[in-house]
Amino acid sequence: MRERVIGAAQMGPIQKSDSREAVVSRMLALLDRAAAQGCDLVVYPELALTTFFPRWYMEDQAEIDGWFEREMPNAATRPLFDRAREHGIAISFGYAELTPEGHHFNTSILTDRQGNIVGKYRKVHLPGHVEYDAARDFQHLEKRYFEPGDLGFETFDNEGTLMGMCICNDRRWPETWRVMGLQGVELVMLGYNTPSVNSQNRGEGLSKRLYHSELSVTAGAYQNATWAVAVAKAGVEDGFPLMGGTIIVDPDGFVVARTTGEGDELIAAHCDMERCQFGKTTIFDFARHRRVEHYGRITSQTGVER
Amino acid sequence: MRERVIGAAQMGPIQKSDSREAVVSRMLALLDRAAAQGCDLVVYPELALTTFFPRWYMEDQAEIDGWFEREMPNAATRPLFDRAREHGIAISFGYAELTPEGHHFNTSILTDRQGNIVGKYRKVHLPGHVEYDAARDFQHLEKRYFEPGDLGFETFDNEGTLMGMCICNDRRWPETWRVMGLQGVELVMLGYNTPSVNSQNRGEGLSKRLYHSELSVTAGAYQNATWAVAVAKAGVEDGFPLMGGTIIVDPDGFVVARTTGEGDELIAAHCDMERCQFGKTTIFDFARHRRVEHYGRITSQTGVER
Repeated sequence: MRERVIGAAQMGPIQKSDSREAVVSRMLALLDRAAAQGCDLVVYPELALTTFFPRWYMEDQAEIDGWFEREMPNAATRPLFDRAREHGIAISFGYAELTPEGHHFNTSILTDRQGNIVGKYRKVHLPGHVEYDAARDFQHLEKRYFEPGDLGFETFDNEGTLMGMCICNDRRWPETWRVMGLQGVELVMLGYNTPSVNSQNRGEGLSKRLYHSELSVTAGAYQNATWAVAVAKAGVEDGFPLMGGTIIVDPDGFVVARTTGEGDELIAAHCDMERCQFGKTTIFDFARHRRVEHYGRITSQTGVER
Repeated sequence: MRERVIGAAQMGPIQKSDSREAVVSRMLALLDRAAAQGCDLVVYPELALTTFFPRWYMEDQAEIDGWFEREMPNAATRPLFDRAREHGIAISFGYAELTPEGHHFNTSILTDRQGNIVGKYRKVHLPGHVEYDAARDFQHLEKRYFEPGDLGFETFDNEGTLMGMCICNDRRWPETWRVMGLQGVELVMLGYNTPSVNSQNRGEGLSKRLYHSELSVTAGAYQNATWAVAVAKAGVEDGFPLMGGTIIVDPDGFVVARTTGEGDELIAAHCDMERCQFGKTTIFDFARHRRVEHYGRITSQTGVER
């Protein structure tokens, strides 16, 4: 038995006018709830500090940069790191990162239980588009505001548990999970901001979108024999609905805890990391069963080729 | 609209003592039912002509080879090819293949609507083990009797539909689906013989096993925007239970038809191949979204490496 008590801190909507400080105070309240439930790790959503700003088309770089953090922790988020340290809780959350060199990434960090940043991930699979798209019901400009992550899918030994991160759309790509699985990952953490309707297909509504998200996370967990935590920012943000559906998934691909609403909501689960071993040593014992000689296309080509 | 009417021909158990001829007569009955429902393609299970013989430990090579086909079609299976041609139905089914060079494969073939073999697949991901394993509740000796397939995951333009095959355990490996997805596959066909309980974990029973199978197939279909047909050999075979759970899945990952029992059972669905286009040109437009520079481990290493 090698147990972690994992909290998934779903957040309700953040409006354009909400300050970082107001958002962090909500994150602190979720952290206190997690402490009361005995959590030693809490995972927050993607872009946890602001509204999902890529829905807005902007041309003014100063305005764009206003959504980004130039250092982490910073004045607004330091109380979160301090409270996490007091509780002895490791945390992971997403934010827009502007590096000293001027690069823009959609980033997540991971701390140990002493509030030290021990892992960083920058989103690799950016969805959406670069230019204003009048054909969409709303914009999804991640490819405009962010560069693809340059860190790959690293894993981090965080106090005896091998942890990895990905963000939102990354969860739909089996490559994301497999690259971490090939490092022996035991827990994959991810946050998301997923619109409740498809901007390019009005017929694809909430139930379908929730299904696709859960399908991707449960398959990734099962096929790599890893725990997974997928955490939503949900509710009506700036007038646009985001889905909930936060889940904690076991290494067999079964959901063990889920949120019920679209507001700030903390769910927790006792997760024994040893449970990853059965899958990793039997049906998904990669060394015994994978046949890389037939996988060449996966890395040798990007798009479809006959 | 580019419609195929696809039949999934689930088969009930085949006992050790059943002749090829008796099995083929059951396959003919399923084919006639498919014709009556207007099918132009019928998919049968893995090792459709015999019992799932890898559950038996054998040392005598002549006895082993008795489960294999040395040519296809052969005397026993020719009536199936003939009837398929009469109905104008393309078929796919699995069998144990012994090549003129003496190689043993777990194979599936695909015909066009004129009964010509237009595609062949040899199972890549062989589950199980090589030597007798006293720790298991029953044996699963695929790694003993078969060599890993040497043809990779090819796709075949079969009268205007791009089709691919895999077999049983292959469906649990996202690499299987992705290699075909990277060729633009529109329909993945697979058969399976899956025990209703895990030979290494008695607590993993039917409902869990069905869930894992469906999870793998629906995720593979969704993440590659392809139709999928997964067909069971089911029921109590030689005293050992095999699960059913035959499904036809749309390119959105939703099950559109499923069997209800564990016997010979034909289900059919009208499948518009054009429905693959939405996923392939938006969220899973590989050329726009994949980042192969971060996938290196998938082909450069077989097992887990930190």
